[in-house]
Amino acid sequence: MDQRAGYAHTLTIQTRWKDNDVYGHVNNVEYYSFFDTAINAWLIEEGGLDIERGEVIGVCAESHCEYRGSIAFPNAVDVHLRVGKLGRSSARYEIALFAGDSDEPAATGWFVHVFVDRASRRPVEIAPRLRDALERLVVAEPVS
Amino acid sequence: MDQRAGYAHTLTIQTRWKDNDVYGHVNNVEYYSFFDTAINAWLIEEGGLDIERGEVIGVCAESHCEYRGSIAFPNAVDVHLRVGKLGRSSARYEIALFAGDSDEPAATGWFVHVFVDRASRRPVEIAPRLRDALERLVVAEPVS
Amino acid sequence: MDQRAGYAHTLTIQTRWKDNDVYGHVNNVEYYSFFDTAINAWLIEEGGLDIERGEVIGVCAESHCEYRGSIAFPNAVDVHLRVGKLGRSSARYEIALFAGDSDEPAATGWFVHVFVDRASRRPVEIAPRLRDALERLVVAEPVS
Amino acid sequence: MDQRAGYAHTLTIQTRWKDNDVYGHVNNVEYYSFFDTAINAWLIEEGGLDIERGEVIGVCAESHCEYRGSIAFPNAVDVHLRVGKLGRSSARYEIALFAGDSDEPAATGWFVHVFVDRASRRPVEIAPRLRDALERLVVAEPVS
Repeated sequence: MDQRAGYAHTLTIQTRWKDNDVYGHVNNVEYYSFFDTAINAWLIEEGGLDIERGEVIGVCAESHCEYRGSIAFPNAVDVHLRVGKLGRSSARYEIALFAGDSDEPAATGWFVHVFVDRASRRPVEIAPRLRDALERLVVAEPVS
Repeated sequence: MDQRAGYAHTLTIQTRWKDNDVYGHVNNVEYYSFFDTAINAWLIEEGGLDIERGEVIGVCAESHCEYRGSIAFPNAVDVHLRVGKLGRSSARYEIALFAGDSDEPAATGWFVHVFVDRASRRPVEIAPRLRDALERLVVAEPVS
Repeated sequence: MDQRAGYAHTLTIQTRWKDNDVYGHVNNVEYYSFFDTAINAWLIEEGGLDIERGEVIGVCAESHCEYRGSIAFPNAVDVHLRVGKLGRSSARYEIALFAGDSDEPAATGWFVHVFVDRASRRPVEIAPRLRDALERLVVAEPVS
Repeated sequence: MDQRAGYAHTLTIQTRWKDNDVYGHVNNVEYYSFFDTAINAWLIEEGGLDIERGEVIGVCAESHCEYRGSIAFPNAVDVHLRVGKLGRSSARYEIALFAGDSDEPAATGWFVHVFVDRASRRPVEIAPRLRDALERLVVAEPVS
C-alpha cells in the first residue's frame, strides 16, 4: 500500500544545516518542528488562524513520535498530515514524515491541539472557518 | 507528594530568547530538547559515552510529551530524569520539567534510546560502564 | 590581561545536545542565540522590558561574530556582556563567549538593538529605567 | 535595479512555526541558519563536500548580518548567494534574504568559510572540484 496515500495534505520542508546533529542525521527534536510547522501553516492559510491578534490560539497538549528511519540535510522532507479526531475544542493530528522520494516513512507521530482563549487559556469551541479547514484533513478509514 | 522526589537526577537549563514562540512561552518542540540534553549529558559525563568516536551511539526510537503548564524565557527549567526500563540494548527514560521553583511539572514525558553500532546501526548490548550509569537512574517504585 | 575582566555582566548558559552540528561543535548560528539571550535576559530582569505587553520592543538592526575557538556540548558557555555605545534609541552591545573555564574567548561579537514602538516599529527614545540598566553595562575604556 | 539579479544562486527555504519569536517575526538568529543552509547545500550538492567522512571541512570564521525588513512564518524565504572573495583556503560569501515575492531584501550579510583538515583543523588548499563550485558563485562586478 502506498503509505503516503493515507494523508490529506503535504507540506515539503527544506532541511537546514544545523538540523543534523553529531551523528549526521536530523536531530529527533526537529521532527516535532516539522509536525507543528505543517499544522500551523494549514491553520493560518486555510483556517484563518490569526496568530498575532486572534482571540483563539492552539496550544499543544500532547505529542508523540516513532522514529523509523533517518532524514539528513540537505534533503527535503515531506510532511504528510491528517486529522484523526476532531472534538469540540481540540484536534488530534496524525503525521508521517518522508525523506526525499522514499515510500517508507522516516517517522510517524501525532499531536493534540487544544484551542483556547488567548487571555484566559481556557478551552473554546472551534469556530466554523477553522473547523471547516480541520474537517478537510479528516481521512475516511480505508476499507481493508 | 513532592513530585520532584521521584527522579534520580536533575539538570538545570537556562532558557533562551528564541525558545519563546509567538504565544509568549517556550515552544512545545524545545521540551524534547530539554529531554535529550539531560539524557546525553548524563551518558557522556557519567557513562563514558564518546559521541565523536565511540563505536556505540544512542538513537531515539520513540518519544512522548504531555504538556501541563508553561515555561517562559528568561526562567530556567529543571529537567528531572530517571530510567523507567532498562533492557539489553535499550533504555526508557522518564522526564519531568519544572519551571523555576514550581512544585507542579510543566510537562512529563518519556524517551527511548536504542544503543546501536555507529556504522551498521544495529542494536548492541549496553557496555558495563554505560549500564552502570543508567542503573543509577533507576528509581524504586514508591510504596503507596 | 584577563579578557573576561573587560565586561560588565555574565550569564552562564548550558549548551544543548542539538547545539552540536555534524562537525562535533556548537553550530555557528547558535552563538548569536547566546548573544540575544544574555541581552534580553538583562533587559527584562534589570530594565523592566515587558516583552509580552510593553509598548516598546528591541529589534536587532545588525549583528556580527568572529569565531576564535570552539564550544561543545555538554559544556556550559559564559556569555560576557557590555554596552559599547548607547544612543537615544539604540544600543550596541559587545559580547565575548568563553567555553568552560577558558581564559581565551571562543568568540567575540556585537549586536545592535533599536528600540521601537511595538505597533508602528518606529524608533523611540529609551525610557529611564531601561536606560539605567543599559548604562550599568557600559565599561570605561581600559588605560593602556 | 533588481536587487535579486546580483546573486548567482537561490535556495528557497520554508520557514518553521518556531522561527517566529515573541514579536511575531523570524528571530534574528535564524537568519544565519538560512545563510549556512544555502552555503552548505551548495558545497555538498555541487562541490562534492562530504560532511560525514571527508578530510576537509568548512568552518565559519566570521559572519555578519544587517536586518532591513522582516520575515514571518508561514512565508518562504529566498536565500540569494554569491561568492565575493575566493582565496587559497577560504571563501567569503555574500547573501541576501527576500521574504515572499518582495524585491527589497529583508536582510543582507556575509559569511567566511575557512577550509581545514578535519583532524588538525589547520587550513588546507581548496580542492579543484570544490573550487570549481565556488567559482560558479562569483559574480562579475556590475558596470555602474
